[in-house]
Amino acid sequence: MGKSQLMSICIISTGDELLRGAISDTNAAWMAARLNDRGYVVERITIVGDDLSKIADTLAESFGIYDYIVVSGGLGPTDDDLTAQAAALATGRPIRRNALAAQQIESAFKRIGRPMVEVNLKQADLPDSCSILQNQHGTAPGFSLDTPKGQAFFLPGVPRELKHMFETYVLAGLPSKTASTHRETFRCFGRGESDVQAELKPIAADHPTVRWSFRASFPELSVMITAPNAPEREAVSRKIRSALGPIIFSTKDISLPAAFGERLAAKNLTVGTGESCTGGLIGHAITETAGSSAYFRGSVVAYHNDVKTGLLNVSAQTLARAGAVSEAVVREMAIGVQRALNADVGIAVSGVAGPGGGTPEKPVGLVHFAVAHPAGIDHKQRIFSGFDRSRVKHISAWTAIYLAYRAISEGFNKC
Amino acid sequence: MGKSQLMSICIISTGDELLRGAISDTNAAWMAARLNDRGYVVERITIVGDDLSKIADTLAESFGIYDYIVVSGGLGPTDDDLTAQAAALATGRPIRRNALAAQQIESAFKRIGRPMVEVNLKQADLPDSCSILQNQHGTAPGFSLDTPKGQAFFLPGVPRELKHMFETYVLAGLPSKTASTHRETFRCFGRGESDVQAELKPIAADHPTVRWSFRASFPELSVMITAPNAPEREAVSRKIRSALGPIIFSTKDISLPAAFGERLAAKNLTVGTGESCTGGLIGHAITETAGSSAYFRGSVVAYHNDVKTGLLNVSAQTLARAGAVSEAVVREMAIGVQRALNADVGIAVSGVAGPGGGTPEKPVGLVHFAVAHPAGIDHKQRIFSGFDRSRVKHISAWTAIYLAYRAISEGFNKC
Repeated sequence: MGKSQLMSICIISTGDELLRGAISDTNAAWMAARLNDRGYVVERITIVGDDLSKIADTLAESFGIYDYIVVSGGLGPTDDDLTAQAAALATGRPIRRNALAAQQIESAFKRIGRPMVEVNLKQADLPDSCSILQNQHGTAPGFSLDTPKGQAFFLPGVPRELKHMFETYVLAGLPSKTASTHRETFRCFGRGESDVQAELKPIAADHPTVRWSFRASFPELSVMITAPNAPEREAVSRKIRSALGPIIFSTKDISLPAAFGERLAAKNLTVGTGESCTGGLIGHAITETAGSSAYFRGSVVAYHNDVKTGLLNVSAQTLARAGAVSEAVVREMAIGVQRALNADVGIAVSGVAGPGGGTPEKPVGLVHFAVAHPAGIDHKQRIFSGFDRSRVKHISAWTAIYLAYRAISEGFNKC
Repeated sequence: MGKSQLMSICIISTGDELLRGAISDTNAAWMAARLNDRGYVVERITIVGDDLSKIADTLAESFGIYDYIVVSGGLGPTDDDLTAQAAALATGRPIRRNALAAQQIESAFKRIGRPMVEVNLKQADLPDSCSILQNQHGTAPGFSLDTPKGQAFFLPGVPRELKHMFETYVLAGLPSKTASTHRETFRCFGRGESDVQAELKPIAADHPTVRWSFRASFPELSVMITAPNAPEREAVSRKIRSALGPIIFSTKDISLPAAFGERLAAKNLTVGTGESCTGGLIGHAITETAGSSAYFRGSVVAYHNDVKTGLLNVSAQTLARAGAVSEAVVREMAIGVQRALNADVGIAVSGVAGPGGGTPEKPVGLVHFAVAHPAGIDHKQRIFSGFDRSRVKHISAWTAIYLAYRAISEGFNKC
């Protein structure tokens, strides 16, 4: 067996905030998933606090066991950033001001146009004879060290900085174990992970040489397959498409709002949103994509009913009769926003995000959707139970975008 | 010192899915947060896969170090549920069918009205002379064992089951330490972590018995202090307030949009937003808070200039003369949205989110803000350089909310 197959990997995350439960360790899960995509399984994830001797002990212990060690966090300029010192202790090297690191820190501050204070240069005080890993998104450089069994990488804890450096320096150095060529990703929305897994189980049973991986990023889900050859990949791909059908919105690595944007641009259509319970999240999600100004006209967030009548032309009678969370009102909102913003497609949402405001007839989680588009206007309703306010907003925004995406793709009624 | 102050605690999570990055370990973060609420800090979180010898090694190692060990996952009936066996190995006890556990499993199946199959009784095969912990929400009982240094608790990995059992059996046995410590949190916006830390360094030097911790959650920052007694906490608190001044927006555990909402509610004011580059994010952020309908009227997201003129009454001449990203336009947008939504406070933002659209005069990251409020209208401009599109949107939304918060608090010009 080659080195790549025997390689053992561990992840060490540092930070008091992780041990206080202030945040969960999404960095480790993200890195583990990326490694898994390449065919590696992490053997252990350890989280330690901002404590010099505990970090040093954990490092020293891991250096003797694992071939590849990825450490995150604790590279910043503050007193509780202790990882470089701990690495020095664990390897018995002195700490020195690293000239290349200092230079990178100075350039980083120039790039963002902020004055550098002396304390920031602490980030250049690193274990002797380490290799510097450039941080393109922040001021703290990373570094790597040879260990008795292999190599250790030290990355900043800020997710955006870590992700870029992990891909550039850690992943790039690992030979892919999954014959990199025959892979496919299916981006899905609308069904749960266990449901989708159960649906795909018979296909997996028929194709034992294909590797499967699932990744949920609320409220989206990705299914990835890695096949040993092209015919096998194509056969499985056909079966997946037939099993999952319309819940697949893309096979590219893009979000649902971005896929919707691509579709709008391809059809030369514009969109506007009339939002109530989502509070502006649909517009926010659409405008995360660069270039969205080509198709996004804007939104009217009509939280108060006066705004529904005043700007979206919803009739006061309809509101009084059916209530703000109703099919009749979202239909009027969709047409209203289409006209008010002069958009080809008008998306409207009204629901009970909770935790208050629910009634037996209109419980928390009830949401009405309407999409006014060139071929007509369509309505759906859903009840998202068991979710908190923030998740109801999130899944409502995605559902609205999904319905509009389907409406301009192959017809609303297939949703 | 009493036992409670010396107690060391670790969490061990088991499950291949955690090491493949399919999900992040929210159980551990949740337990750590509950322990932190009681004044305990978890010293280490370890995640291991479904591998008998690795779980047993991790347990054996921890039994010699920690007083309290909480283990989650691997108690189910399937072949990869190995935690009970690992606990037996690690403590050198035999595995036996536990009569009380078997009885609880049978009752659990009766309760949920499902037939019990023989394999489910595997969940009753536990290390000899352990104590059974009842699972009210599932079929797998938990158990606890005495260890050389203290006690180990074994809980199922299903969050709902784990949470209930953690509260009943783990937390209930730990004396609360929070009465004896004096903590305070300062939530800040507007300055970077290293900058704030440098500002507070002299205070820290004067108060060596106070523990400090910093938590950045872009674009907010929290400074937490833990003092040995009330006078010390008050002295440090006064100095922090004087050093950081207006960047502190709350001492409660709430976000800036929530703090702004509280202030609006207290002053009986309503707000509406006129957004361009933020795309709806300000409205989304404000409506994350339950009860925001009491003060949030809505938003007009005027992405296209036609929407600025049509719904926000921005004059076409101003747009032609000054351009959409200008002081003149945001001032008109703020007044326009205040009127269009009949809000007491109108917030307006227009900027270049990037990555395209920048010019030498109006670079990517340039954002204009205006707040129309009962005492007048005010304007600021900022350049957020070195940030990507999503971050420019995010920091712009927070800056807008911060300026409005200050405007209705002690006067806009102190910002």
